[in-house]
Amino acid sequence: MKKRIKTSKPRRAAKGQNRGATTPKPMSKPSKPDTIHHVAIPVPNVAQAVEWYTSRFKCRVEYLDDTWALLAFANTRLALVLPQEHPSHFAVSRPDANKFGDLVAHRDGLNSVYITDDFGNAIEVMEEP
Amino acid sequence: MKKRIKTSKPRRAAKGQNRGATTPKPMSKPSKPDTIHHVAIPVPNVAQAVEWYTSRFKCRVEYLDDTWALLAFANTRLALVLPQEHPSHFAVSRPDANKFGDLVAHRDGLNSVYITDDFGNAIEVMEEP
Repeated sequence: MKKRIKTSKPRRAAKGQNRGATTPKPMSKPSKPDTIHHVAIPVPNVAQAVEWYTSRFKCRVEYLDDTWALLAFANTRLALVLPQEHPSHFAVSRPDANKFGDLVAHRDGLNSVYITDDFGNAIEVMEEP
Repeated sequence: MKKRIKTSKPRRAAKGQNRGATTPKPMSKPSKPDTIHHVAIPVPNVAQAVEWYTSRFKCRVEYLDDTWALLAFANTRLALVLPQEHPSHFAVSRPDANKFGDLVAHRDGLNSVYITDDFGNAIEVMEEP
């Protein structure tokens, strides 16, 4: 006679487990997160700011002129902008950026709109290339 | 912010030279760029701000309490902080963060130091985990 093989019982959570510490917050979204395209900070002189940042941090100058610069870091970009042209802000890429407001077209084909959160922070919502 | 990266010619480029505009600027660094760990913006009420951001953008609540929250985007994080606790800033991860100043241990176990650029912007330099 064949020995009956014991099968393992279904695992049941022991009392006291599942304390909720790792349960996702209700507001979390399961889908792929949005990308932060850049962070922008105001500087009075773009060239001086580029020198300041590139001499201290490892980053690549992706664009530079008298009015703004874009420094590429490993995962996102730092924009150095003149305060009279742009507010301090960060930019989120969205395929449905137009739902956030009327997009402004730029020469390279990237469109975006500035919005403000309920707390006074500026956000640029950019159409994904 | 104007997006002229791909279409603009380099400033002062000699006629006919560097037509692709891909020549690295002298200040560019060839080594692997640093990572921007997070961007932090001030909000008067953290829970309300989490609700505002998670209802509009795809991001995951990585941490949340009464005094701050961390929202994970695809490539970096957005920190929502109380203005009386932290300035608006962005954080750069560096293995040699201690060279930027005396590191302070934070409740999340990471050590960092706040510095200010020559133009009044706050930067948190964080020791890489």
